[in-house]
Amino acid sequence: MRLFSTPQLNPARSSGWRHRWFHIIYHHDTRPARDFDLILMVAILASVGVVMLDSVQRLHHDWATWFYVIEWVFTALFTVEYALRLLVVRRPLRYAFSIWGIIDLLSILPTYLSLFVPGAQSLLVVRALRILRLFRILKLTRYIEESGVLMHALWRSRRKILLFLFMVVTIAIIAGALMYVIEGPERGFSNIPASMYWAVVTMATVGFGDIVPHTTLGRFITSVLILIGYSILAVPTGIYTAELAGTMLRGEDISRLDHRGCVICGHEGHEHKARYCNRCGHELPRPQD
Amino acid sequence: MRLFSTPQLNPARSSGWRHRWFHIIYHHDTRPARDFDLILMVAILASVGVVMLDSVQRLHHDWATWFYVIEWVFTALFTVEYALRLLVVRRPLRYAFSIWGIIDLLSILPTYLSLFVPGAQSLLVVRALRILRLFRILKLTRYIEESGVLMHALWRSRRKILLFLFMVVTIAIIAGALMYVIEGPERGFSNIPASMYWAVVTMATVGFGDIVPHTTLGRFITSVLILIGYSILAVPTGIYTAELAGTMLRGEDISRLDHRGCVICGHEGHEHKARYCNRCGHELPRPQD
Amino acid sequence: MRLFSTPQLNPARSSGWRHRWFHIIYHHDTRPARDFDLILMVAILASVGVVMLDSVQRLHHDWATWFYVIEWVFTALFTVEYALRLLVVRRPLRYAFSIWGIIDLLSILPTYLSLFVPGAQSLLVVRALRILRLFRILKLTRYIEESGVLMHALWRSRRKILLFLFMVVTIAIIAGALMYVIEGPERGFSNIPASMYWAVVTMATVGFGDIVPHTTLGRFITSVLILIGYSILAVPTGIYTAELAGTMLRGEDISRLDHRGCVICGHEGHEHKARYCNRCGHELPRPQD
Amino acid sequence: MRLFSTPQLNPARSSGWRHRWFHIIYHHDTRPARDFDLILMVAILASVGVVMLDSVQRLHHDWATWFYVIEWVFTALFTVEYALRLLVVRRPLRYAFSIWGIIDLLSILPTYLSLFVPGAQSLLVVRALRILRLFRILKLTRYIEESGVLMHALWRSRRKILLFLFMVVTIAIIAGALMYVIEGPERGFSNIPASMYWAVVTMATVGFGDIVPHTTLGRFITSVLILIGYSILAVPTGIYTAELAGTMLRGEDISRLDHRGCVICGHEGHEHKARYCNRCGHELPRPQD
Repeated sequence: MRLFSTPQLNPARSSGWRHRWFHIIYHHDTRPARDFDLILMVAILASVGVVMLDSVQRLHHDWATWFYVIEWVFTALFTVEYALRLLVVRRPLRYAFSIWGIIDLLSILPTYLSLFVPGAQSLLVVRALRILRLFRILKLTRYIEESGVLMHALWRSRRKILLFLFMVVTIAIIAGALMYVIEGPERGFSNIPASMYWAVVTMATVGFGDIVPHTTLGRFITSVLILIGYSILAVPTGIYTAELAGTMLRGEDISRLDHRGCVICGHEGHEHKARYCNRCGHELPRPQD
Repeated sequence: MRLFSTPQLNPARSSGWRHRWFHIIYHHDTRPARDFDLILMVAILASVGVVMLDSVQRLHHDWATWFYVIEWVFTALFTVEYALRLLVVRRPLRYAFSIWGIIDLLSILPTYLSLFVPGAQSLLVVRALRILRLFRILKLTRYIEESGVLMHALWRSRRKILLFLFMVVTIAIIAGALMYVIEGPERGFSNIPASMYWAVVTMATVGFGDIVPHTTLGRFITSVLILIGYSILAVPTGIYTAELAGTMLRGEDISRLDHRGCVICGHEGHEHKARYCNRCGHELPRPQD
Repeated sequence: MRLFSTPQLNPARSSGWRHRWFHIIYHHDTRPARDFDLILMVAILASVGVVMLDSVQRLHHDWATWFYVIEWVFTALFTVEYALRLLVVRRPLRYAFSIWGIIDLLSILPTYLSLFVPGAQSLLVVRALRILRLFRILKLTRYIEESGVLMHALWRSRRKILLFLFMVVTIAIIAGALMYVIEGPERGFSNIPASMYWAVVTMATVGFGDIVPHTTLGRFITSVLILIGYSILAVPTGIYTAELAGTMLRGEDISRLDHRGCVICGHEGHEHKARYCNRCGHELPRPQD
Repeated sequence: MRLFSTPQLNPARSSGWRHRWFHIIYHHDTRPARDFDLILMVAILASVGVVMLDSVQRLHHDWATWFYVIEWVFTALFTVEYALRLLVVRRPLRYAFSIWGIIDLLSILPTYLSLFVPGAQSLLVVRALRILRLFRILKLTRYIEESGVLMHALWRSRRKILLFLFMVVTIAIIAGALMYVIEGPERGFSNIPASMYWAVVTMATVGFGDIVPHTTLGRFITSVLILIGYSILAVPTGIYTAELAGTMLRGEDISRLDHRGCVICGHEGHEHKARYCNRCGHELPRPQD
């Protein structure tokens, strides 16, 4: 509670329960806050598990009613949590339109929509996005530092990786058009987009084998394409390794992120020395030490 | 226009429109020049998209006429652009026989040829090369620096990578001949070139599955080949990463290339301090700062 | 024998044969100890070889009786070895419940159980674990140092690799659910778990080809998934390489592990300067130099 | 000829033609020596090409006689070369039993044997080894330095890579036995060696698709195996990159190998400062500068 020893900072949170729940939901340093995180994590994993099992024909046939009931229990739980998040934050709209707010909404919406709209099948995929909610909980654990290093290296090499992807797409277009002419529709290369799909599958060394070259010339070009792809495989690995090694050698302090949540918009993950929320600009509670 | 404040450098470009169009096509620092780049980029992407869609049987059946018309519009556009490039440069032949000049020509030629030569199908592939033209536009953006680092590392490791490719081909020949004898034509390894194709596909971990070993000995040799290939996969990655890390650590200034185009042959991408075009030897306009 | 020049350290090992056998089994510096290691290594390899050959229908048909006899010979040998290990160590229970003790037990148990329990087939897999026993022998050779460097780098990057695996699983869930909706059960994506299996197989560039996308949208998403997986492939390699390079550059002395075995629980692999067993706390024999 | 300005070093080579041919075959610094290398290189490539083409059913049917004649021409040429090598070297037996000597012999033997032994088909594979002879010529070019760096890094990491291979085999045995029990012979996993072949193919991300899991448990274990294999893929790359980067940073002078050939046994590739042949101990000609 030391964190909120300066109540004049948050005059709006006068009622005790809002204060308490804000702490439980947006902080992670007390026992009830940790219990909340744990329950949420278990509920997310269980609900995603139910979505998966429900898709298995045999299980759906035998347990459809149970799955339906469980699904509604989880939806109710997540709805309560979503409502709470909206209630305890001072500027709820900001939260509602943030990435996490949208994911939270997408986690409960499909179940309600399935009452009115037939064809719940395609809405199913949206519920699988619930797994993303795990990241919010995880990013506040000790993995935050590791994640910072990985992401920072990825961010620093973004242009090189984009360039690499553009190169891959260019090669895919040329190789795809070439193979379409050489092998032709009668041997599986039915059109250029399909040939490009084949080229990506081949270059990335996946090689499903649903489309394969049959002519000698086609096989030769495939071998060349593979060797090019093989050499190109070195590029993103090289970029990323070099950046990562650089980041680790410099020992940059990119990951000194904070566990404090903003009382206004609920945004988390501020810099350690930050005094104001980098999302809504409101003053942050003082760091704990 | 500061760039051309010394008109005595380019006495031949007396007429205003040639001067203006040279700047629009070969420079990228003014509003019209950037608009030109943007229009060209969109046209290239759209025309490659049409080539792709036209190859889809169903779409070709329904929209053949439209695709034909659009194709001619793009061809006309690119023809005008090609003509302009030839006109505004002082030594058009140099441009015509440069890499970019040939790619520009190949982008429009197939459509004209299809009027006289039947079998436009195989000419289609050539039109896909249009995608390469995007590189000319992109190389003048902020990606030029990244590209420089990547290419420099690739260039420095060219001999090691060639050696690696030669090693792969040698292993493919020996493994191919071996599997041809062990498995034989009746199990898919119909001749040594086909076996070599299989060896490359296997070693590079693509593994289509169109040709697979069936005998125990064949499978054992395949496992050994895979483990060799698996270890060899480390080689180009290692080479490239080491070179890239070296280049990045040294912070070499290999990418200080310029946006100035030569008024004689249109060649771009000169060193920052270059005073003469490295392609035709003509004096370059002074750098902007 | 210099190693045991202080007999008062091990008063319990008064009888000569226990002393001798303890040395033979848990040390590796004398001729008989090395012979013991060699015989054990050959026996392990041969017994695993028999398990393998026995699974081949044709060989089983012709040689079943021989395989049965040989299997019992090896089981008897390993039983004697297991008994000896229990006998010469001062605290046998500690050994019995250590990792190596359990593996040793699992190596002989299935054969005995097959006398009483029908369906020896599934017990067969347990006997293959014998191969793990080779590591105990190998870890005391010159490979210990290399292994130390490799493991240390792996250990230091454990959180980053866990994060990476979590990321892969998340992408597999989302891509799996997506493809289940797009392609549907009639095209092989029979349920979300099966789709996730496909997503992992695809992302990791294995690409069996037993399940493949057939719709254009499905193929497009597959291409995107592959390119993401392709870029992600760089992550563990980058992490591991950076850590390994760091470990090798710092030249940390993590691998100065010892060949001394604890006289109480038989635990091996202590730090070079360790004076007490890090498993049971008993004083270790003094280092040899 | 400066290189042999000290004739007293090689008293045996009194006759002019042996002297000259020794220089032509074992040195690479004069015009005739380079011509000899070039002719040999072309002959090797052409003869391997003929072996390949001869294996193609259709070509064999039409051109069998021509291929037969050409094969004999090349065999005659290589026989003359082999005889010359034996003649001009002072200790021919040493050459004959060296690696290169054996490869040279294997390049001509199969053709002679095919006269007496029927079933020339299996001897064909041996002739493909001719491609290895190219390495002797290439290793004396500018690629020698690159090759030295690559090989040195490989040699320094040999133990780590062996350990890695041993780890892969262990996982293959355990995963193979497991899948044999779970999937069983009726689903393609016909015995443990076949399952191990599958495990290697899967772990190395080749994934032919000739054997695939069908049960849910089997697919789950496959996913786990793939993710393990995926993480393990990082190990050899990491090892090799770290070693290579280390070698390149230290700039070790491991590749200052010489072009001088020993007059006694014909061995090449000595250290730059070497005074005696590291194979037969005879004094080497003085280095050129």
